Amino acid sequence: MIYPEIQRRRTRAVRVGGVVIGGEAPVVVQSMTNTATADADATIEQVRRLAEAGAELVRVSVPTKADTAALKRIVADSPVPIVADVPFPFDRALEAIDAGVAKIRLNPGNIRDRGQVRRVIAAAADAGAAIRVGVNEGSVVDRTDDASHAADLARPLDELMVEKMAEYLAVFQEADFHDLVLSAKSHDAVTTVAASRLIAERWDYPLHLGVTHAGTAATGAMRSAAALGALLCEGIGDTIRISYAGDPTAEVAAALELLYSLRLRPRMGLDLIACPTCGRALMDMEPIVEQIRTALAGVDFPVSVAVMGCVVNGPGEAEGADVAICAGKGKAILYRGGKRLRTVSLDEIVPAVVAAVGEIGKSRR
Amino acid sequence: MIYPEIQRRRTRAVRVGGVVIGGEAPVVVQSMTNTATADADATIEQVRRLAEAGAELVRVSVPTKADTAALKRIVADSPVPIVADVPFPFDRALEAIDAGVAKIRLNPGNIRDRGQVRRVIAAAADAGAAIRVGVNEGSVVDRTDDASHAADLARPLDELMVEKMAEYLAVFQEADFHDLVLSAKSHDAVTTVAASRLIAERWDYPLHLGVTHAGTAATGAMRSAAALGALLCEGIGDTIRISYAGDPTAEVAAALELLYSLRLRPRMGLDLIACPTCGRALMDMEPIVEQIRTALAGVDFPVSVAVMGCVVNGPGEAEGADVAICAGKGKAILYRGGKRLRTVSLDEIVPAVVAAVGEIGKSRR
Repeated sequence: MIYPEIQRRRTRAVRVGGVVIGGEAPVVVQSMTNTATADADATIEQVRRLAEAGAELVRVSVPTKADTAALKRIVADSPVPIVADVPFPFDRALEAIDAGVAKIRLNPGNIRDRGQVRRVIAAAADAGAAIRVGVNEGSVVDRTDDASHAADLARPLDELMVEKMAEYLAVFQEADFHDLVLSAKSHDAVTTVAASRLIAERWDYPLHLGVTHAGTAATGAMRSAAALGALLCEGIGDTIRISYAGDPTAEVAAALELLYSLRLRPRMGLDLIACPTCGRALMDMEPIVEQIRTALAGVDFPVSVAVMGCVVNGPGEAEGADVAICAGKGKAILYRGGKRLRTVSLDEIVPAVVAAVGEIGKSRR
Repeated sequence: MIYPEIQRRRTRAVRVGGVVIGGEAPVVVQSMTNTATADADATIEQVRRLAEAGAELVRVSVPTKADTAALKRIVADSPVPIVADVPFPFDRALEAIDAGVAKIRLNPGNIRDRGQVRRVIAAAADAGAAIRVGVNEGSVVDRTDDASHAADLARPLDELMVEKMAEYLAVFQEADFHDLVLSAKSHDAVTTVAASRLIAERWDYPLHLGVTHAGTAATGAMRSAAALGALLCEGIGDTIRISYAGDPTAEVAAALELLYSLRLRPRMGLDLIACPTCGRALMDMEPIVEQIRTALAGVDFPVSVAVMGCVVNGPGEAEGADVAICAGKGKAILYRGGKRLRTVSLDEIVPAVVAAVGEIGKSRR
């Protein structure tokens, strides 16, 4: 089977510590701590857990001087590059760059003084730090006077976000600073998609994708996957963060699952395809699927296994999977590499699949 | 705030019992039973549970004559239109139409004899039943001889699926039968997106979207939401099924969540936006969010509530929500309809939000 591939939009490559965002690099998974950054021990502990879960960059928020004071140790002890999120005073940006972070995140809605932005750009250029310019729905509306406020509220939000981005980027262009990553986030999936599309049309800087305040893992998964999936399917997006309320390691698992499902990253271990057990199923699927999942949980190479309950879609799916089982009446057909191997009894299914996967493992060593 | 809207592709309207797919109709949520259809009692019970969960159409598989024999009772007792999935013998299609189903689903890969297809079309036209022509990855490759098999395997899967669709549709066009819904499904998200895009370009029949064999709810959510979200964001899709292994009511909840998150359907009840509790949070978010969720679980009108832990994104989000709370140091600001109402102590947050939502409820009655 020849599966179509996502054609990724070509962007500039931006170096963030040892990680590259954009260019030919795979989509980078990032997350953010929810500890007080000033508590260096707790933050380092969470950064490590996020890195173990698969985060390739971790962002920490630095609203206070106590937070930036903790950064040097966090940067030194982190297994992945650290990004500092600078919500307000521009001094925090200078302190963070001084502490050695690989990237800072600025929000055009919060640090507007051009002179201050120029000083941050100069410091980042000296230190080799990248900058994300991240526009958020929450800080894009001008509240300095009633007239501007009313005018901004009357405009489509996606256009307003991109206009603020353009105004802000002018300072970076004047300074000839291009180690930039851009983002436009909203809690609303459609707005995130629309604004990110506009940005992708207009600039060739890499894009950071995320939906803000998506909710808990239970409620936020569909919203995040819909928005990020839509953009990634259009080839847009160089780094992603899924943001859930609660334990951030769940964010990383979800982000990886999204990239696996779009084949933007090879899944190490088992990719199990199971048919949804309709009335046609000729075997009791769930226990067999679970036994196979348990038996192959430790697999450390990419392998796909399809478990199909009937012959309607079974043979076709079997041709696309490394190992497949397709149930008939009281027996099943075992496939390997898209080819029919032999008929097995229902009892033999699990050991036969495990053995076939084991052989593939040997051949890949 | 003016949020951008998805511009839906305009398709023909197709009537399926009392439900319309395509045209101006909202995206229809459907699901499929996993009982043996021949067991009418168990099937009716599951159809009712799916309808209660929000399924507007329910599909049942009819591989055997015992299954179609149960259809008359199932159709009579179902609160929603019933769709019969006809995997193989074309007699099942005729029997299902005779039993009064509102739609049948045919797979071009399985019923190829043109004379048989013509008889099914004639019966559907007489009975006023719609037909879904559903191409699946699993049944699209020609296996009648080695040369055709090799040729099909060498072609991009999405193009092959659409070519099979075109060949099959010729018979329907000859018969001037247009009560059609089309679908092209794969377990692979990118293939599902690519094939559905090609179909949407070529025909104006409404599209049914789904990813086959997506996995369990835990693993299949990202894959399904990415593919369906991508298509829906492009305006493609008139009815959706999310397919999980296991209890199908979880499919319906996920499908609804996806449509809510893209604003393709108004969420009845609470839409809770909570910030992801980063290091900036000035209150302990999780217990407050959970107390608000619990207190407002019974709300039966659409209302959005934003709970923001700090002033970075808080005021902006507050302007987009019906009711919002934005924490400062030791106190919080209450918003209603985007306007600042008053400052409340942290203890007052939950009752103040509940009271504000209650007032909105009264004003909407």
